[in-house]
Amino acid sequence: MKKFLADIDVMPLKEILDPQGKAVTGSMKNLGLPEINNVRIGRHITLEVDAETQEIATEKVETACKKLLANMIMENYSYHIREI
Amino acid sequence: MKKFLADIDVMPLKEILDPQGKAVTGSMKNLGLPEINNVRIGRHITLEVDAETQEIATEKVETACKKLLANMIMENYSYHIREI
Repeated sequence: MKKFLADIDVMPLKEILDPQGKAVTGSMKNLGLPEINNVRIGRHITLEVDAETQEIATEKVETACKKLLANMIMENYSYHIREI
Repeated sequence: MKKFLADIDVMPLKEILDPQGKAVTGSMKNLGLPEINNVRIGRHITLEVDAETQEIATEKVETACKKLLANMIMENYSYHIREI
């Protein structure tokens, strides 16, 4: 059995307002960083998967994203997986 | 003036308990994914920086991370920056 590490990003869809990101963009101005714009905030998730092959690990990560980690109505996800 | 996109990950330090990650690890078992372990949950942040050079953009992102995006007591951060 091999062990894989998955790095997953879950982000709000572009079409959807990101009030937390908007608030942080505003704070950048107050912090003396007016050059920073369009902040968007999502989640970064790392996890370990035990699997025989990278393909099986990828399947497990897909299932985890769809069923638990991302809300497919409001978010999209991307990931990369590597053996550890 | 050039425009850069920064991808920033802010994660709880390894030494620090991540109760949200622990809860999600537990849910994986109930979801029929017992192969998934050691879930850790942090933030993924994207932002745009206007700057003359990549070095200046990097400095701005460092300042933003230290002052606003990460809590250096409990979290660490990493990023990459590319011109868009």
